[in-house]
Amino acid sequence: MKILVINGPNLNFLGIREREIYGEDNYDSLIARIRHKAEEDGDEVICFQSNHEGAIIDRIQEAYFDGTEGIVINPGAYTHYSYAIHDALKSVAQIIKVEIHISDIASREEFRHHSVTAPACDAQIVGHGLQGYLEAIDLIKDLKNKTE
Amino acid sequence: MKILVINGPNLNFLGIREREIYGEDNYDSLIARIRHKAEEDGDEVICFQSNHEGAIIDRIQEAYFDGTEGIVINPGAYTHYSYAIHDALKSVAQIIKVEIHISDIASREEFRHHSVTAPACDAQIVGHGLQGYLEAIDLIKDLKNKTE
Amino acid sequence: MKILVINGPNLNFLGIREREIYGEDNYDSLIARIRHKAEEDGDEVICFQSNHEGAIIDRIQEAYFDGTEGIVINPGAYTHYSYAIHDALKSVAQIIKVEIHISDIASREEFRHHSVTAPACDAQIVGHGLQGYLEAIDLIKDLKNKTE
Amino acid sequence: MKILVINGPNLNFLGIREREIYGEDNYDSLIARIRHKAEEDGDEVICFQSNHEGAIIDRIQEAYFDGTEGIVINPGAYTHYSYAIHDALKSVAQIIKVEIHISDIASREEFRHHSVTAPACDAQIVGHGLQGYLEAIDLIKDLKNKTE
Amino acid sequence: MKILVINGPNLNFLGIREREIYGEDNYDSLIARIRHKAEEDGDEVICFQSNHEGAIIDRIQEAYFDGTEGIVINPGAYTHYSYAIHDALKSVAQIIKVEIHISDIASREEFRHHSVTAPACDAQIVGHGLQGYLEAIDLIKDLKNKTE
Amino acid sequence: MKILVINGPNLNFLGIREREIYGEDNYDSLIARIRHKAEEDGDEVICFQSNHEGAIIDRIQEAYFDGTEGIVINPGAYTHYSYAIHDALKSVAQIIKVEIHISDIASREEFRHHSVTAPACDAQIVGHGLQGYLEAIDLIKDLKNKTE
Amino acid sequence: MKILVINGPNLNFLGIREREIYGEDNYDSLIARIRHKAEEDGDEVICFQSNHEGAIIDRIQEAYFDGTEGIVINPGAYTHYSYAIHDALKSVAQIIKVEIHISDIASREEFRHHSVTAPACDAQIVGHGLQGYLEAIDLIKDLKNKTE
Amino acid sequence: MKILVINGPNLNFLGIREREIYGEDNYDSLIARIRHKAEEDGDEVICFQSNHEGAIIDRIQEAYFDGTEGIVINPGAYTHYSYAIHDALKSVAQIIKVEIHISDIASREEFRHHSVTAPACDAQIVGHGLQGYLEAIDLIKDLKNKTE
Amino acid sequence: MKILVINGPNLNFLGIREREIYGEDNYDSLIARIRHKAEEDGDEVICFQSNHEGAIIDRIQEAYFDGTEGIVINPGAYTHYSYAIHDALKSVAQIIKVEIHISDIASREEFRHHSVTAPACDAQIVGHGLQGYLEAIDLIKDLKNKTE
Amino acid sequence: MKILVINGPNLNFLGIREREIYGEDNYDSLIARIRHKAEEDGDEVICFQSNHEGAIIDRIQEAYFDGTEGIVINPGAYTHYSYAIHDALKSVAQIIKVEIHISDIASREEFRHHSVTAPACDAQIVGHGLQGYLEAIDLIKDLKNKTE
Amino acid sequence: MKILVINGPNLNFLGIREREIYGEDNYDSLIARIRHKAEEDGDEVICFQSNHEGAIIDRIQEAYFDGTEGIVINPGAYTHYSYAIHDALKSVAQIIKVEIHISDIASREEFRHHSVTAPACDAQIVGHGLQGYLEAIDLIKDLKNKTE
Amino acid sequence: MKILVINGPNLNFLGIREREIYGEDNYDSLIARIRHKAEEDGDEVICFQSNHEGAIIDRIQEAYFDGTEGIVINPGAYTHYSYAIHDALKSVAQIIKVEIHISDIASREEFRHHSVTAPACDAQIVGHGLQGYLEAIDLIKDLKNKTE
Repeated sequence: MKILVINGPNLNFLGIREREIYGEDNYDSLIARIRHKAEEDGDEVICFQSNHEGAIIDRIQEAYFDGTEGIVINPGAYTHYSYAIHDALKSVAQIIKVEIHISDIASREEFRHHSVTAPACDAQIVGHGLQGYLEAIDLIKDLKNKTE
Repeated sequence: MKILVINGPNLNFLGIREREIYGEDNYDSLIARIRHKAEEDGDEVICFQSNHEGAIIDRIQEAYFDGTEGIVINPGAYTHYSYAIHDALKSVAQIIKVEIHISDIASREEFRHHSVTAPACDAQIVGHGLQGYLEAIDLIKDLKNKTE
Repeated sequence: MKILVINGPNLNFLGIREREIYGEDNYDSLIARIRHKAEEDGDEVICFQSNHEGAIIDRIQEAYFDGTEGIVINPGAYTHYSYAIHDALKSVAQIIKVEIHISDIASREEFRHHSVTAPACDAQIVGHGLQGYLEAIDLIKDLKNKTE
Repeated sequence: MKILVINGPNLNFLGIREREIYGEDNYDSLIARIRHKAEEDGDEVICFQSNHEGAIIDRIQEAYFDGTEGIVINPGAYTHYSYAIHDALKSVAQIIKVEIHISDIASREEFRHHSVTAPACDAQIVGHGLQGYLEAIDLIKDLKNKTE
Repeated sequence: MKILVINGPNLNFLGIREREIYGEDNYDSLIARIRHKAEEDGDEVICFQSNHEGAIIDRIQEAYFDGTEGIVINPGAYTHYSYAIHDALKSVAQIIKVEIHISDIASREEFRHHSVTAPACDAQIVGHGLQGYLEAIDLIKDLKNKTE
Repeated sequence: MKILVINGPNLNFLGIREREIYGEDNYDSLIARIRHKAEEDGDEVICFQSNHEGAIIDRIQEAYFDGTEGIVINPGAYTHYSYAIHDALKSVAQIIKVEIHISDIASREEFRHHSVTAPACDAQIVGHGLQGYLEAIDLIKDLKNKTE
Repeated sequence: MKILVINGPNLNFLGIREREIYGEDNYDSLIARIRHKAEEDGDEVICFQSNHEGAIIDRIQEAYFDGTEGIVINPGAYTHYSYAIHDALKSVAQIIKVEIHISDIASREEFRHHSVTAPACDAQIVGHGLQGYLEAIDLIKDLKNKTE
Repeated sequence: MKILVINGPNLNFLGIREREIYGEDNYDSLIARIRHKAEEDGDEVICFQSNHEGAIIDRIQEAYFDGTEGIVINPGAYTHYSYAIHDALKSVAQIIKVEIHISDIASREEFRHHSVTAPACDAQIVGHGLQGYLEAIDLIKDLKNKTE
Repeated sequence: MKILVINGPNLNFLGIREREIYGEDNYDSLIARIRHKAEEDGDEVICFQSNHEGAIIDRIQEAYFDGTEGIVINPGAYTHYSYAIHDALKSVAQIIKVEIHISDIASREEFRHHSVTAPACDAQIVGHGLQGYLEAIDLIKDLKNKTE
Repeated sequence: MKILVINGPNLNFLGIREREIYGEDNYDSLIARIRHKAEEDGDEVICFQSNHEGAIIDRIQEAYFDGTEGIVINPGAYTHYSYAIHDALKSVAQIIKVEIHISDIASREEFRHHSVTAPACDAQIVGHGLQGYLEAIDLIKDLKNKTE
Repeated sequence: MKILVINGPNLNFLGIREREIYGEDNYDSLIARIRHKAEEDGDEVICFQSNHEGAIIDRIQEAYFDGTEGIVINPGAYTHYSYAIHDALKSVAQIIKVEIHISDIASREEFRHHSVTAPACDAQIVGHGLQGYLEAIDLIKDLKNKTE
Repeated sequence: MKILVINGPNLNFLGIREREIYGEDNYDSLIARIRHKAEEDGDEVICFQSNHEGAIIDRIQEAYFDGTEGIVINPGAYTHYSYAIHDALKSVAQIIKVEIHISDIASREEFRHHSVTAPACDAQIVGHGLQGYLEAIDLIKDLKNKTE
């Protein structure tokens, strides 16, 4: 199965940025854990990170053409205002999409309580740390099997 | 594994209530599908439905004592105002909880856009029809395996 | 004709509760007046009161099966937040429903100005005192005759 | 009995205007149905339509002097902002007033969800199509009989 | 003196639920402390807990008939939306009512900042832990003595 | 001096309409009192009443051409939403304008608390009953003298 | 081609009213410019101005019967609250409608920022002075040609 | 007649503070103009200025005892939030009170659009510059004469 | 025990100000009742009143140094906006504080519904008239005994 | 004449994305229709699409230097929050700008009802499908001719 | 250079008040640090603290006359509602003003997020502890040098 | 010392864009002034401008690795909605950050009144024109010295 993992702005600064919230693990170790799982499961998992809203949309659109079957997306701060990413996710209707947040956004600043991208996704996993990415991949595979 | 499936108010009227939104399947066939899956998977799955907010809270609390490991909950209209169910879900911290909605609540009336119970759950599955219940059960099992 | 009269929370305290607003008549005299009218008209009128949101929903659902043709409902304070009762009323689409309020809710506290259950009813009668219940029964019968 | 039926702005365009919402019947057939019922019932029913807020207020005031006992009013778009019509309805306190809307205004645009004129009326009938006008006339007669 | 202590939803989970907020003491030890004080003071104190909004209203109404002179109530999450409990408290006008909250609700989630039941009570004690229940009982006795 | 007194919708129903708020005096006695004062003072005072928003605007514009030096206006319910009357008052910049309300609008319904027409006037007199009209005429004369 | 130009309240006071905003040209010169263009283009252009909301609605409805193909409308202050004009414009679905404002309403008072009539029009031209009327006529002709 | 003129915070900085809004005249010349008028009219007019909210309340209360018949008050910035001054003005019910603002507060910053003190006054004069104080004194005398 | 009773702005006008709300008793008789109770109980009770926000804060700070063990405070209108008094109350953390209001503020003007000072107090007593001050003193003594 | 047509995020997915809203035509056929018109009219029309907010701003700034006389812009989802694009459009003051939306945004999700970019444009065309682009080009040419 | 340091309400309780937020240093040590720096730099620095809003305004006005060139102000809780202090700061236009807050107000209670006094200052320093006062003094000196 | 000056969208259009607000100086002269100061002070100052939100975030992250000690940032319109830039600034915790705005944003359009990026900075300088950039650099150096 072909799955795309998208990380939005500042997630490449995991391990640097506010460690009391995001933990000590850095971005590279996240990628390593995802890669390891992909190998075990025999899936093709592609990781993509960008601070650019437009680049994230470009990548979602590309997924439409390259046979991607599922997208795990952590849109970072764009979660809270990027209707453009919302529209991009909605436009690739046949791909299964799971939004993921590392920390429990409901217990942080007011502006982090609302997700404009979630309504364009099939499911959401929140507050499970980096582990949430692996769970999201499994969830996509479950959802895929179910609908076949 | 022991999983509790809770359906809130009016969900026992599936197949009777607004079929253009909830589909033709009725509550009994939903239960049958869940039962069938449980047998296949070798899980213990208990189904519970009530129109009473208090009864739903009682049942969640009971789960704390009876060894339940996961809760799939569709709180029906209570989703939108029952801070009491929110508190109950939050108080059984060691149980994995997945909220599920049959229809795409973001495209319905304004009051259905906001969930006060979701922030007390680990994940949310929305708009996958009755199939979403089965997916939620799988998701709980995945999440359980991951954290062990 | 078979009509169900539902009174929500605290309406059994008529005659006890804030008499300057709800009048001196108590709940029993209300029931007596409704009974008397039913006998005169040759209708079957069933009166039901509960302080429990869930019990009101249960009773509305029961009406779906027992041949009830009309519901007169005074949801009491649930008027202002029970989306679950709203859903229950909406789900029994073939029954005629009239919401009734004894006092003029528009001239009382802010929170009483908005009804979340009214949009699920066919009509509303407000501020006619206990007399409003009798008028609501007549209105259901008119509406029934009209649609036959 | 003497009853006045007031139709507000654009209701003379029934049958022309947004037929998917208001139906195929035109204003003349509405008047014919009301007239027919009035003859059958032996009532005096006067129909009045105007696009002018002021003319509607003039007509309500006139009703105070000409012996009108009930008013059926569909204030059209003025429903949502004409506090002046609200005041006029309130000032003719001894006349029974029923507000009527052809379509289910709660399921249309946001601005149609709120009625500023309803709190000055004794009852409201919503979403019963043109039939609602006939039901409103019957309701006025019931309310009149009850209070005599 | 006869006093009723009402605990709303999830308060029976004291000692289980979010101990960093509610402390280590459990519901039984709360009851024990209240009982002990009642014996010392020679009062009749009845403790009642329910997760059901309707059951709490039923119990408040029962208090009207059984000679209860004061009510200490912690409505739990119902504090923030139960206008029905508000109405019930208001309807037993001759009983002294004190609302109590264990934790400092003003420093927690936004939805806990507003109490819809407080305006129906004579006083409020907030943030004194379990001790607040004992203080509330004393306050009722003071208020009672003052008004005699 | 030439002064125009404009009364908006439903003010011709003084003495008929909500007498507990507007008093027992009727519209004719108001006009008589204004006439009497005008004779005493040797002023030309013209009284105009209309339920039509457009007619009120027409009359204000006419005042621009007929030598009117001051306008006393009670816009009735239009006070709260007629930006068109606001614009008309603003456009006759050289005329002194005083808004007047018979009752204390700040202690009535929410919608009466805000005046959209007041910012286009030079002064406002509120809650002095019919006497307020006479005071407003005097105020215009004072303001006129001051600016000469 | 037959085009109707509607000017709402106070626009006949162009050249009198707030000249720093609306410019020195008066209403007559606006009409002259429109007439001149109509002659050049060989169109039938009818100009209509009223301060009466109802009269504007009457005129829009008349346009439905008299073969009008396009409406240029400057609803003046009614722009901001007349849902009745909105409904009238919407009801003449086959006529092309362009809303026009002389000044840049976005840089004026808060209440002028929102147009309730615009959503019933095909296009909007803002802030081009009197010239905007001529541009609106051209735009209607373009839109007409395109859809033929 | 005995009249008190109260100026609130920063009004002693007239002529220093934002001259493009408040004009070139300073506080002393304002007092001189008021004094001059008082002499001409044979009134006793006392001027008081303070930057202290409490001192303004003290002075209003003092007026209750010293025979003051009218108060002209420009509460400065306290206009927009001092409910304490509102209460003080309301408590001296038998004194005529006129609020005055030098500049047109409706055309300035958002926070200056709302007056919490105006509802406790009998009239308001806005935007007439320093002249407004003299007009306010005349208005008080008119209002006094009328009610005698 | 040493207790400080603080009365905020306009409370010295008890008996003068709006007697239908605050009753006939004046400030002196309130002080007398408090004094009488203090003598009976053998407490040192100091009464302080000021219309000055700053003076109230000064007095609260002084209490920190002079051995005051409890504060009864009726902040008058400052209740609704004085975050500075809120901060002062919070800063004397070791003193027990009870807020008191004479009338039922929830049934008065909108701006009186919200208290910004209450979250800095241990308890609140509302709507018990002058009697509430005596109850508040007793409550402080109870709270003190409990925590010792 | 030199005209720039800018399409914002996801508009390159026309024909792929939500076809029930945007129609069956794809982005290439839109470009073809624009090109064809440009050839017929003898205009230079350049088409630009980007998912990047910054790239759209870069392109608008470039237009300032390359002799562009008109911009047709469909900012896609950026319409609803890109104040940066608003500023860019405003900064090229001498270019005529027309905003265009394919679908009727007023009848879609709440967040699509507000345009932050429109106030920086000279006109807006909404809900005419792909045809709207051609109409916008004509409108620019008309506006250009008018101002020469 | 002559600089005035103003501390608002409760800042004299530094070291007493909420030490986990404001630190262990008390007000005297703050003054000592400021004095020490002034001596080193050869500046005249005057420190002023008051709990009285009016006294702070008086002191700002005094600065206008005594040659003060810069003001460092920490308005304490007045930051959030004192439009009167805002006006005072604005009226001394030629003095450089820097607002300072000891703690990071954005991470505290909602009411502390908004500053009404900041828009009247030239700069703001937030969350640097007592050190921020010294930085503010340096900043004033820089800003002064720059504008000379 | 190494300082990075970031200019956001449209600031490269200084001198072109709305000169009545931003002044006649263009972007190049701003850079020249900053360069000149850097040479005089012996600092390394790097200037960066981009219209791309993502590029600004990339550059902030780069600063984490290249030894930058201070950032002066004018985020242009991104100030008002870019939570992603906010997060980026927050993630480089050890760098001193000063936000700067050329014009007085509090006196412009509503949407410019709120800064979402300011809470991630140490200080803010507003309304000092281009001079503000130089002042911000000095402020960073002061802040740096203080904390060493």
